Amino acid sequence: MAAILTMPAEVRARARRGEWSGTTAGHCPRYQQANLVLLPAAVAGEFASFCTRNPKPCPLIEVTPPGDPEPRLSAPGADLRNDVPSYRVYRNGELVEKRSDLREVWRDDLVGFLLGCSHTFEHALAEAGVEIRHVAYGTTVPMFISSIRCVPAGRFAGPMVVTLRPVPRSQLGLVLELSARYPHAHGVPVHVGDPGKIGIEDLARPDFGDPVPVGEDDVPVFWGCGVTPQVVAREARPELMITHEPGQMFMTDLPREALPGAWTVLGGGEKR
Amino acid sequence: MAAILTMPAEVRARARRGEWSGTTAGHCPRYQQANLVLLPAAVAGEFASFCTRNPKPCPLIEVTPPGDPEPRLSAPGADLRNDVPSYRVYRNGELVEKRSDLREVWRDDLVGFLLGCSHTFEHALAEAGVEIRHVAYGTTVPMFISSIRCVPAGRFAGPMVVTLRPVPRSQLGLVLELSARYPHAHGVPVHVGDPGKIGIEDLARPDFGDPVPVGEDDVPVFWGCGVTPQVVAREARPELMITHEPGQMFMTDLPREALPGAWTVLGGGEKR
Repeated sequence: MAAILTMPAEVRARARRGEWSGTTAGHCPRYQQANLVLLPAAVAGEFASFCTRNPKPCPLIEVTPPGDPEPRLSAPGADLRNDVPSYRVYRNGELVEKRSDLREVWRDDLVGFLLGCSHTFEHALAEAGVEIRHVAYGTTVPMFISSIRCVPAGRFAGPMVVTLRPVPRSQLGLVLELSARYPHAHGVPVHVGDPGKIGIEDLARPDFGDPVPVGEDDVPVFWGCGVTPQVVAREARPELMITHEPGQMFMTDLPREALPGAWTVLGGGEKR
Repeated sequence: MAAILTMPAEVRARARRGEWSGTTAGHCPRYQQANLVLLPAAVAGEFASFCTRNPKPCPLIEVTPPGDPEPRLSAPGADLRNDVPSYRVYRNGELVEKRSDLREVWRDDLVGFLLGCSHTFEHALAEAGVEIRHVAYGTTVPMFISSIRCVPAGRFAGPMVVTLRPVPRSQLGLVLELSARYPHAHGVPVHVGDPGKIGIEDLARPDFGDPVPVGEDDVPVFWGCGVTPQVVAREARPELMITHEPGQMFMTDLPREALPGAWTVLGGGEKR
């Protein structure tokens, strides 16, 4: 793979200039990456409900108020309209367009949802000596539409999307232990071992991203995925929904380990 | 104090029958208690933003979709319209009414926000031998409007409300360590030691709840409080906002230690 970037602001700047293509996996080891969902304010409460009821695929990191594209908690000064490498535009549940910026489709009632991403904990695994297969191959993590049903919230209902990482059997305990420390980034897996048990028939044919080789000594491990809202939208059919391109995330300035609510404010002010 | 109830469903049933008065502090040691904020869907995205940006006073446990009063994640079968002991109704930021149920003011566009509560971690402190002063006195925890400013989100901006617990100096380390385990229930304190530093002039005159004695060997310790939205509403002035009566919480069925997103789904289905 190309040289690893370490600062989120650098990735965002490249994305803004249109100089980034492909996955963000493997970059900025010390920071959190995030899925993006933009929805009109009229359905934002309903979608917030969906996220809180499905914290495995949709852990809330920050919600932005209507029309304000700056995620001032996660990345002060950043702009959700430009700083993601690539966007998808869904209308009435149908993917109608992919774009590199949102200038022409932005609206004053759009609410942004930043959801935790498994790319965040991959760095902890890599540092512990676990090979992240899609990073080694320079491809996008394989994602599958599973048969696990999300907990519904109003019109938002549907199957959970999951990511696959093949893990050598000898490292399985380590992987479970490490990923459990990142509940804000999908946390422990939703399934270990048998793809068929969660409705996945062929590991070589992911619904999003690219396939990776699964060896004889590997165990297939599946985590909740923040692409879930893009599949749920097919049934919920909101008039407009804009997301990141799967695998190409918004890079936050939040430290990798920072759990929402665990931050301390001592002595006052907006600082944290 | 009266006999301690252990099951949340029993407290909710008594509240529903109008047979509960006073604080819920000290009850249901094994479960999470929650602050309630109900807002019209039109401002729900903006308020969700405020909560995510201020996770110390407003840790999100569950959001309910418009018009649906059942918090199916936190307390399946419960009803947010009746199961809180007492409610406050704010219109355009002014407290206009206190009610014991919401039948006459419920609307199909109301979105419910359940926010973590410090009563949850009090049980962990009590089990470790820390006296919870307001529980010992059978009064409501003292709450103060501090000078700590919340991180704004659209029209939602203003000061953070904090709870006070006097802690014997010898137990301070223990209290910090234990409360840190509950980021979903305000977590570590926002200030320790000097009330004046966060704009509190007189510990004997709380803005909500009742005063408690603070001894010479006590350190005043302050935590973020889920009553913050009620004060923020005075400035944001949403046309309608309904909350719990401070100290009289919604009792959830969530285990005390259950952190959002840390729950495991293994093998599929809506179960968790």
